[in-house]
Amino acid sequence: MPYIDAFNHFFPKPFFDRLCETPAGQKDMGKRVRGIPALYDLDIRNQIVDSFGKHDYSQVLCLGMPAIDRLFEPKDAPEMTRIGNDGLAEICAKDPPRYPGWAASLAMNVPEAAVAEVERATKMGANAIQLHTNVDGAPLDEDRFWPIFEAIEKSGKPILMHPIRTREMADYRNEDKSKYEICSVIGWPFETGAALARLVFSGIIDKHPGLKIITHHLGGIIPYFQGRVGHSWDQLGARTSDEDYGAILKRLKKRPYDYFKDFYGDTALAGARGPTLCGLDFFGADHVLFASDCPFDPEKGTMYIRLTIEVIESLGLSPADKEKICFRNAEKLFGLKAR
Amino acid sequence: MPYIDAFNHFFPKPFFDRLCETPAGQKDMGKRVRGIPALYDLDIRNQIVDSFGKHDYSQVLCLGMPAIDRLFEPKDAPEMTRIGNDGLAEICAKDPPRYPGWAASLAMNVPEAAVAEVERATKMGANAIQLHTNVDGAPLDEDRFWPIFEAIEKSGKPILMHPIRTREMADYRNEDKSKYEICSVIGWPFETGAALARLVFSGIIDKHPGLKIITHHLGGIIPYFQGRVGHSWDQLGARTSDEDYGAILKRLKKRPYDYFKDFYGDTALAGARGPTLCGLDFFGADHVLFASDCPFDPEKGTMYIRLTIEVIESLGLSPADKEKICFRNAEKLFGLKAR
Repeated sequence: MPYIDAFNHFFPKPFFDRLCETPAGQKDMGKRVRGIPALYDLDIRNQIVDSFGKHDYSQVLCLGMPAIDRLFEPKDAPEMTRIGNDGLAEICAKDPPRYPGWAASLAMNVPEAAVAEVERATKMGANAIQLHTNVDGAPLDEDRFWPIFEAIEKSGKPILMHPIRTREMADYRNEDKSKYEICSVIGWPFETGAALARLVFSGIIDKHPGLKIITHHLGGIIPYFQGRVGHSWDQLGARTSDEDYGAILKRLKKRPYDYFKDFYGDTALAGARGPTLCGLDFFGADHVLFASDCPFDPEKGTMYIRLTIEVIESLGLSPADKEKICFRNAEKLFGLKAR
Repeated sequence: MPYIDAFNHFFPKPFFDRLCETPAGQKDMGKRVRGIPALYDLDIRNQIVDSFGKHDYSQVLCLGMPAIDRLFEPKDAPEMTRIGNDGLAEICAKDPPRYPGWAASLAMNVPEAAVAEVERATKMGANAIQLHTNVDGAPLDEDRFWPIFEAIEKSGKPILMHPIRTREMADYRNEDKSKYEICSVIGWPFETGAALARLVFSGIIDKHPGLKIITHHLGGIIPYFQGRVGHSWDQLGARTSDEDYGAILKRLKKRPYDYFKDFYGDTALAGARGPTLCGLDFFGADHVLFASDCPFDPEKGTMYIRLTIEVIESLGLSPADKEKICFRNAEKLFGLKAR
């Protein structure tokens, strides 16, 4: 059974070198990144991919965290984006068996450059567009971002949606906002849900029904709270004193819950079986893609691939459903062929 | 099969009358509360309970949202707490078949009063203590709250942990923080996870291992993200540049993941079956209690009871596990008898 890993991270050398030169990059490139060689060393990454050869395993690559628009000012972000995307395209062009596809990043803090990059990357063969759940703290439904969603819909490419902490998102207090890493461990999945809600209730999805959004971590908080997503948002406005949200429900083309069911999710849940069943039950086999989040695991690259394959193999899926999750949905959405 | 509903909300008349007189109460007592008569009208509430008579259904009562310490200044909060707790005690004393137990609220913004109320309420027969996940924005692990956890452990009563939005918890930006009700629908379950993490990593659980914490909404975000809770927090500090969290891992008496497994969860997931299976798989049948979150559903009191009973009946549980979830865990933790 071929496994296409839909969502994992790599910094191509030209991008990583430039990143390490900048103050922004240096601040964040400490132990977090340097301690994970598979994030920037292609030989090490190749070894990891090859170690899963018996599974015909391959990876769709995208850049690592943080988002370019968090690291770089508008004057630098578009250029860094092109360097990153060119680097990913080159790796994939040279080695399609290991790396059959890549997702382009965008300089969301320069929306007109982001629109242009969607078009340039698509022409270069990008298989997806990676977006983060907010743009340096700003929600994705701000007016300035709408043309980007229009361009992505036009490109026909799916969005790989990655969470990132908002600047204001405190676990409790602003001076203490990353206490115990609460925000990255469990705040990110909330962020994913919040971003999806913004796309739904703002009307972006209604305006661009062709968008296909693949959420990292199997939908974030949404599938486990599908009951609240359904029944609480059916009552949008009923518990709010100072805003009239009833008009939003009337404007939407379908029930809020149904928009969330129409998103896609990847299996990057750090090898947890029960949650994978829960998310699969929510999205259905046509809307779930295998992914590992390589190389962000305690073994620095191999552990989540291995555990996630074990989970998939343990689910007792029908052959047809298993093929969809392991590679057919990826082939279809990304427009590529498994090895 | 008797069903004890472990977590649902009611305002006794003396408390509700006082609440409605105050500016704080009036602000929040608009359509949100007035539109749900079963939240404050005992006759209507009795009818709802009786409508599930064939299930030998009964309710453990606690006050509704928001928390007293969000609604009242320190000068008023302790008195309002006593009025609320006296009201719940009276309802239960008069009608044990319908209301076999109650959870005491605390004025957390007056910690010494909270300690005294734990003792007073326990003497009055309180079956649990209801805490919210933050105190008007302050995390539960601030020094001033530690004596309260000591008093609760001493009382032997379990904590019913309810989420509440932090003042600073923006879904994106502070000026826009309740946009689309994102915070109450999916931010609350994140809050639950954040509060649990604070209790674990601060050392409160190690200091008071007798605490039994029953989380609303089946653990909030924790069970679906058990993979991250495990493997990401095993690496606490590895991705943080400016703080040394390694010392916390060394200080803890067990693996972070194991603390989270030791909490309890209730089944208040708005009638969603897949997530209930996921949460039950995480906590185990000894640590899950039936609860509905009555009366906060689109039917204003009946819907989540009915749907949640349907979910439990559909799970194919062993008779022993079903009894634990439906009433035996509640009997044991709360110290009461099912009808």
